[in-house]
Amino acid sequence: MDIFEKCRRFTRAKEAIEAGIYPYFRPLSGNDGPRVFMEGREIIMIGSNNYLGLTHDPRVIEAAIAATKQYGTSCSGSRFLNGTLDLHHQLENKIAQFMNREAALIFSTGYMANLGGIATLVGKDEYIILDKSDHASIYAGTRAAIGAQIKRFVHNDMESLERVLSQLEPETPKLIVCDGVFSMEGDIVRLAEILPLAQKYNAQIYIDEAHGVGVLGEHGRGACEYLGLEEHVEIVMSTFSKSLASIGGFVAGPQYVIDYIKHHASPLIFSASPTPAATAAVLKSIEIIETEPEHMQRLHHISDKMRYEFKRLGFDIGHSKDTPIIPLYIRNDDLTFLFWKRLFEEGVYSNAVISPAVAPDQALIRTSFMSTHTDEDLDKVLEIAAKVGKELGIIQ
Amino acid sequence: MDIFEKCRRFTRAKEAIEAGIYPYFRPLSGNDGPRVFMEGREIIMIGSNNYLGLTHDPRVIEAAIAATKQYGTSCSGSRFLNGTLDLHHQLENKIAQFMNREAALIFSTGYMANLGGIATLVGKDEYIILDKSDHASIYAGTRAAIGAQIKRFVHNDMESLERVLSQLEPETPKLIVCDGVFSMEGDIVRLAEILPLAQKYNAQIYIDEAHGVGVLGEHGRGACEYLGLEEHVEIVMSTFSKSLASIGGFVAGPQYVIDYIKHHASPLIFSASPTPAATAAVLKSIEIIETEPEHMQRLHHISDKMRYEFKRLGFDIGHSKDTPIIPLYIRNDDLTFLFWKRLFEEGVYSNAVISPAVAPDQALIRTSFMSTHTDEDLDKVLEIAAKVGKELGIIQ
Repeated sequence: MDIFEKCRRFTRAKEAIEAGIYPYFRPLSGNDGPRVFMEGREIIMIGSNNYLGLTHDPRVIEAAIAATKQYGTSCSGSRFLNGTLDLHHQLENKIAQFMNREAALIFSTGYMANLGGIATLVGKDEYIILDKSDHASIYAGTRAAIGAQIKRFVHNDMESLERVLSQLEPETPKLIVCDGVFSMEGDIVRLAEILPLAQKYNAQIYIDEAHGVGVLGEHGRGACEYLGLEEHVEIVMSTFSKSLASIGGFVAGPQYVIDYIKHHASPLIFSASPTPAATAAVLKSIEIIETEPEHMQRLHHISDKMRYEFKRLGFDIGHSKDTPIIPLYIRNDDLTFLFWKRLFEEGVYSNAVISPAVAPDQALIRTSFMSTHTDEDLDKVLEIAAKVGKELGIIQ
Repeated sequence: MDIFEKCRRFTRAKEAIEAGIYPYFRPLSGNDGPRVFMEGREIIMIGSNNYLGLTHDPRVIEAAIAATKQYGTSCSGSRFLNGTLDLHHQLENKIAQFMNREAALIFSTGYMANLGGIATLVGKDEYIILDKSDHASIYAGTRAAIGAQIKRFVHNDMESLERVLSQLEPETPKLIVCDGVFSMEGDIVRLAEILPLAQKYNAQIYIDEAHGVGVLGEHGRGACEYLGLEEHVEIVMSTFSKSLASIGGFVAGPQYVIDYIKHHASPLIFSASPTPAATAAVLKSIEIIETEPEHMQRLHHISDKMRYEFKRLGFDIGHSKDTPIIPLYIRNDDLTFLFWKRLFEEGVYSNAVISPAVAPDQALIRTSFMSTHTDEDLDKVLEIAAKVGKELGIIQ
């Protein structure tokens, strides 16, 4: 037996491909935001995190192009050494101001922001307390925190959280890490109830605003702003690959904490810095979010409409509320694959989420919406979902 | 005490800044490859991994711009779900062909390629055997391999490697992971000696070609090609942020191994895919490397010249050989900072590498060269290094 034996035994993907129900890694040959081209057909995209449609805003594209012309296609080094541009500092200052935080630090992916941020902040024997539905990158950061004690509570269940907290060594430092908006469920962290528990049990709070920035709160700062509780959350992070039309991520918080992460986070120090294009695209996107509230307003209008209509059709949408993420719970892996396949055949791309990503009875089709979807796009989606849902007995 | 106490106690960076000898996170305001603009001055850059200078090649810039116009500034999702473009598949096919491997898989950073590749391949109780000088991202992948047994051997020391291997459970799968070119030392993996040991002790080999691709070997495939031993190495990885003028990374090897990584690597499945611009820049860079050998030839000419001249001046360059990375060993942290500072004042940007990145007696100034450095640039660098080296008593 050698190290590759596990690879030889892996057949699940091949079997799904052969059965014609494999929904993953499907290539887009064109992408106009809400409409994409796949396998020679135009498809309505309801599986993207491009919430404000800014990846195709001519101003964002122009900013990325101008930065590429000015600085080249890569920084060829890490922020720590030769890879810092004045543009990176501009973006960090902009994010700090936008998020209303003292300081911010950017990473080349959002995944690495959580990996570096969490692993750096939580030391040996200290506690990390996670919501079971937290994003995989939070889990990665947790695993990378050498010697940390990891505790988990049931998704958004405050009794479960208190049960966990009450069993921990009172004097040992603790960090509670939660998604602000949960990426599959589309529900929001119960921060108003977490705060008194954090205070009672001497824990600090770190919120991942990946699906909140540009979506929730008056200024688009995310779930903490939406809940009016920003000043009680010490650290926030977010990504650039959702509303901010790019790739990368940041952590933001007090200057001394950011300085510490900056000098200790392996995925910052030992990875190439964000490209000039990626950096410039974020800067322009934040500027647009700050000055044009109509995109967020349209997004909420659309999301509320789709939530209402899916529910009216009889779909089980769980606890999705006030976010553009609306799960259609199927609660069966095979049926989820089949529903996904029929939607795709009819011209709609969604995301199939099955075990082990979620428990088998939580299998779902994740739908998410963009401010750039037209009313016609949305009516078509509803028509197809109703038709296929009935065909498969998912709705009556 | 709370979770941020460690941040409050961190003062080393502040002290170095106040002492005026802090060399890190210095912003570039312009970047023309070998010449950059920092703090209002034009500086010669000898601290970049842009080995072939392709980040400013008009064809690479044009490819990045065209892809941005065609596909937008971001894919807004993971490869696994809505974030795969036909362009990603094109690049994976191109890499497989270029690297002479059955299949390749791209990640959004090189760091995440190692993180995902290694953590996925090495299971519970299996062995990972590392060279002590392996890159931090290899260590990150190793730590992320849950339950794996981690062993290390002295840098490029084959007796140390055999000592380690001989003590392991013979039947348990083993993966030896090494840099092809060591990023600080500029020396090359001793693959010809590792191979018989790997065979004897039933281990497979994974080589990180980050500093080898576009630099070593007749076709620029890296250290394995340079050593004529490619077919004995099962898995190679590399990054896009060195010779390939972009950001990202890949693993390449047998199809069934790549398929396994593709369906199990958390940093692939749960992170946004490479941007259209980043992807297109790599495609164009590989095309240029394939058709224009003169860039690699010029790089070797320059590197040999600088190695010869630094040595002639009396600098300790360790075991650097046939690569564009030439360390100047100072072997003292403070003197390294001081040498770095004086070089910078005189108009040369290099990289200061001190403890804990290396042992204090290994502190060094890392210099690295690009095919686009002019002879005038290089003579100027030598003149300044000689002047400052003598001034500080580093050379006679």
